[in-house]
Amino acid sequence: MSLHHVIIDTDPGQDDAFAILLALASPELNVLGLTTVAGNMGLDQTTDNARRIVELAGRGDIRVHAGSARPLMREPRPVPEIHGETGIDGWDFPPAERGPEPGHAVAFIIETLRAHTEKVILIALGPQTNIAMALRMAPDIREKIERIVFMGGGYFEGGNMTPAAEYNILVDPEAARIVLGSGVPITAVPLDCTHATPAPVNWSSALAAHGGEVMRACAGMMEFFERYGNAKHGTASRPLHDAVAVAALLWPDLFTGRLCPVDVECAGQLTTGMTVVDWLRQTGKPDNCLWLTGCTDSADVYSRMEARLARLGTRR
Amino acid sequence: MSLHHVIIDTDPGQDDAFAILLALASPELNVLGLTTVAGNMGLDQTTDNARRIVELAGRGDIRVHAGSARPLMREPRPVPEIHGETGIDGWDFPPAERGPEPGHAVAFIIETLRAHTEKVILIALGPQTNIAMALRMAPDIREKIERIVFMGGGYFEGGNMTPAAEYNILVDPEAARIVLGSGVPITAVPLDCTHATPAPVNWSSALAAHGGEVMRACAGMMEFFERYGNAKHGTASRPLHDAVAVAALLWPDLFTGRLCPVDVECAGQLTTGMTVVDWLRQTGKPDNCLWLTGCTDSADVYSRMEARLARLGTRR
Amino acid sequence: MSLHHVIIDTDPGQDDAFAILLALASPELNVLGLTTVAGNMGLDQTTDNARRIVELAGRGDIRVHAGSARPLMREPRPVPEIHGETGIDGWDFPPAERGPEPGHAVAFIIETLRAHTEKVILIALGPQTNIAMALRMAPDIREKIERIVFMGGGYFEGGNMTPAAEYNILVDPEAARIVLGSGVPITAVPLDCTHATPAPVNWSSALAAHGGEVMRACAGMMEFFERYGNAKHGTASRPLHDAVAVAALLWPDLFTGRLCPVDVECAGQLTTGMTVVDWLRQTGKPDNCLWLTGCTDSADVYSRMEARLARLGTRR
Amino acid sequence: MSLHHVIIDTDPGQDDAFAILLALASPELNVLGLTTVAGNMGLDQTTDNARRIVELAGRGDIRVHAGSARPLMREPRPVPEIHGETGIDGWDFPPAERGPEPGHAVAFIIETLRAHTEKVILIALGPQTNIAMALRMAPDIREKIERIVFMGGGYFEGGNMTPAAEYNILVDPEAARIVLGSGVPITAVPLDCTHATPAPVNWSSALAAHGGEVMRACAGMMEFFERYGNAKHGTASRPLHDAVAVAALLWPDLFTGRLCPVDVECAGQLTTGMTVVDWLRQTGKPDNCLWLTGCTDSADVYSRMEARLARLGTRR
Repeated sequence: MSLHHVIIDTDPGQDDAFAILLALASPELNVLGLTTVAGNMGLDQTTDNARRIVELAGRGDIRVHAGSARPLMREPRPVPEIHGETGIDGWDFPPAERGPEPGHAVAFIIETLRAHTEKVILIALGPQTNIAMALRMAPDIREKIERIVFMGGGYFEGGNMTPAAEYNILVDPEAARIVLGSGVPITAVPLDCTHATPAPVNWSSALAAHGGEVMRACAGMMEFFERYGNAKHGTASRPLHDAVAVAALLWPDLFTGRLCPVDVECAGQLTTGMTVVDWLRQTGKPDNCLWLTGCTDSADVYSRMEARLARLGTRR
Repeated sequence: MSLHHVIIDTDPGQDDAFAILLALASPELNVLGLTTVAGNMGLDQTTDNARRIVELAGRGDIRVHAGSARPLMREPRPVPEIHGETGIDGWDFPPAERGPEPGHAVAFIIETLRAHTEKVILIALGPQTNIAMALRMAPDIREKIERIVFMGGGYFEGGNMTPAAEYNILVDPEAARIVLGSGVPITAVPLDCTHATPAPVNWSSALAAHGGEVMRACAGMMEFFERYGNAKHGTASRPLHDAVAVAALLWPDLFTGRLCPVDVECAGQLTTGMTVVDWLRQTGKPDNCLWLTGCTDSADVYSRMEARLARLGTRR
Repeated sequence: MSLHHVIIDTDPGQDDAFAILLALASPELNVLGLTTVAGNMGLDQTTDNARRIVELAGRGDIRVHAGSARPLMREPRPVPEIHGETGIDGWDFPPAERGPEPGHAVAFIIETLRAHTEKVILIALGPQTNIAMALRMAPDIREKIERIVFMGGGYFEGGNMTPAAEYNILVDPEAARIVLGSGVPITAVPLDCTHATPAPVNWSSALAAHGGEVMRACAGMMEFFERYGNAKHGTASRPLHDAVAVAALLWPDLFTGRLCPVDVECAGQLTTGMTVVDWLRQTGKPDNCLWLTGCTDSADVYSRMEARLARLGTRR
Repeated sequence: MSLHHVIIDTDPGQDDAFAILLALASPELNVLGLTTVAGNMGLDQTTDNARRIVELAGRGDIRVHAGSARPLMREPRPVPEIHGETGIDGWDFPPAERGPEPGHAVAFIIETLRAHTEKVILIALGPQTNIAMALRMAPDIREKIERIVFMGGGYFEGGNMTPAAEYNILVDPEAARIVLGSGVPITAVPLDCTHATPAPVNWSSALAAHGGEVMRACAGMMEFFERYGNAKHGTASRPLHDAVAVAALLWPDLFTGRLCPVDVECAGQLTTGMTVVDWLRQTGKPDNCLWLTGCTDSADVYSRMEARLARLGTRR
């Protein structure tokens, strides 16, 4: 895999934290900056979390731009019951040394894409409000986007918030619809894929064994996640959804899926926020999304991830 | 399994034919009558087909009542491209000797349920227009309905007409919503289940080998179905959807599923006609439907079915 | 105006009572029977009310058939806050001497239309559930329906339950959609028309002055209505909506409107139950409804109505 | 009326041209800039038209910023059949001497509001895409917005594109919903108001009689509008919708209306784009919009407008 230039749009979230750390630890990815969005937590919290995460990784130089404080058409739906009070509960992060940059996330995305000579990959780990607004404000940036990789949705697996809808899409279905309709190449990493990519049982212990601040932070957040999984789903083996999205970008050979037409239901009584995947191509619409549904070796994904994260640990 | 009294509501369709013949061949089922509905074909055709099928089975005494010529709110959607010109293409049925009974299917359902001392099972093999109207006209019949078993819908498998909707539900989503909201015990036999219950490859040949008019008719219809499956899906091994519904009633030990809340989307832009299954009980709504998702021994299902059908053949 | 044969479908309601009494008092109308529906009150109450009303008029011979106890797709919405505990508060009706007939309203409508040699007008004064079901069960009756005259809807005036929806349509929008899509000639008497046809101020006193049981009953119900109007709208001059519908049938010269395409919104977030009137013919759909919007002489309407009602009074 | 600082968001359109010219001719209004949006014509055309209009008025110093090239969720719907090939057919405008400013309209709105010490009025004459995006990107600007005055919608009058929807709202209903839900004070100038404010018959002749380039341009555009009105509606007396919005801001004494709750239907089958006005306060939602419904002296409106426009004429 050659070098990719990426912007990560995120609402941390423990699994966002793993995704960001994995990206920062990966030489194949040149992280141009982080943009934040309201999602798992409110915007101020996700922005502060993003700063703490890049600083934990020793990459305080990475710019973080705060973005949309709410979805396009709907009310925000923070979920502290899943992610804890801070959104990244499980590790007591020190306060960020530096605040976010002054410009709005949407402006940063537009300006960065326009200024960059090479194409850029957008990695969307939360509701897609910022990316949708950037696409609407500056349609010209589409030709500078190599691909949008997003964690979100679910078709064969249904949803995790309603029987039809996954969190990231449900929170801003209109934004996801704009993104999927943009004409930009897209890779979706939905629940269909992440549920096929669970973390090893008790992975937190394995992470802790590495020692070092980054790995202990990872272990702490993972343990928090495992406890939630145990309590809610009766299993310690849960996927780190957002981190799987970065893994799918890094190691596409470990994932399977199909290029097909995908759209988002925005007007259903029971199905709003559903990613409607035309897997059998019954609609005649054009293919617009590589929809990942499987992982050929989940253990290998987390093994590679662990090795990468451990580099950050020793870097400090 | 003790004796069940059943009314079969149907829109034949080759797979309806198998379902009806299987029911007539099964001593556990006392078929009180057939009611017809517009679906796979127009009402006149499905009614005539129902007559021809009961007469083929030597059961011309079974009453057939014509019902709704169209769905509650939507336009009819006949599919001759799937079932052929007659709906039961593949066998040249002789004309029915007798016509349908004079009363409307909905009146027949209501009167039969009210008059019958024991509870009755309704087997719904097409759009559920008749049953929905009966439930609305005579709410008292609910206590005389032992269960409604319907073929329709799909959740983990998606749909066969759109990415979200299966044919029987898509044609009359409002009727299915009325049925699912009626409070009557319901067993759903959706694509999730029927796709797990494919007929044996080249089953038509096995059927033909029995000889006799019924089996030759079954073989002819099956061959037509296999040809369609081959042409469209590239496989000769397709499920006889409606027959699986009767099989699931007869041999529940061969099928798996879960009792959970199920509803129908009637207002989506992309998802109208979707059966929304709350498999993980995220909605807090009451369980209203046993949703079948698997078959533990598909070969056994068709083997048992073949043995039953063969009885009809020898009866003549 | 020549003789019209009518069936009145109703959910009394004081204004239904006036409508029924006006019809019974009018030699131009041959009332073949009444059918009742859940609406202003539950079905048992509206049915009992209908019996009491025909018996008050000395027409205990008029058959009353109970119909649908609930709308097709929605929950019932009785409004005792408008019509009082009995639905016809304001007069202490004696108990009905006779109960409703045994058959269902829908069956009665179908059988009566089929049996009648001349065409029949259906007057719909409540939610249109019964009429919609009859049209779906027996499409052949369309050619026996001279016209459907319904009270319901509102376009230029908006609604009386929501900013977009009037009560009768809101309660069963799907039924109204079926009726408007049936191809039968239709006259709508919406709020646009009834608000242009308010009763004279203190009409109850004028009615009471006639003496006799019928007029005292009318005066009592009218006074109840006036009190509600005063309390809610600050005016004693309110239209008797349903009675205006019968008046529009009797005296079309006093009303104005336009033949145009009309449909019902069934899927809006804010507008479900709205009668969407294509007054300017922007949609290209066919004209299906004479939509009344005005009354040229409201005083004359009530003056004629009073004279008719007074005949009933003296008849006793 | 004291001095108001305004930004005009516009999609010219002949009536936009009158609105802009009226604003520029009015000493009560300090026009901080124009922003353009796709609507009556595509964005390039509306932007070029805006430049030509300010230059015609001798106000080439007014900055024009191009904005959204399409609605948030829907496809653009240009209407050259109404406004002609250029959108401002009827006068042969010379090419603009200067192009639009480099920054995006949304950025201009946000920056201007933040920088301005006094509150600013936003006048929205087209689809409200730009304003909605500015509100979402920068919620803090709400406290710098004195009021949003928009031309759009219709309730008592219905719509001009569908029976329920007016053009500006129909083109971007989601944007209008965002604006109406923003909490900013809003004045709506809907069809209910503009239809009560028709221009004088043959106003074009009166305008032409003034002489001078501006008045001849106005006369030409007005004549084009009158011809369209004659052809489509059979009357030469049509309202200059957008100009009425500026008039309502300048001369509120000439207009009537009510402060009440207003929202936009975004999910109806027949009613998408409808402004749902809770005129009778049936919903319990908070009042958010001054909904204008009448004009007390339409002749005076156009007489005052003519006098203002004539000033521009002599200025040159």
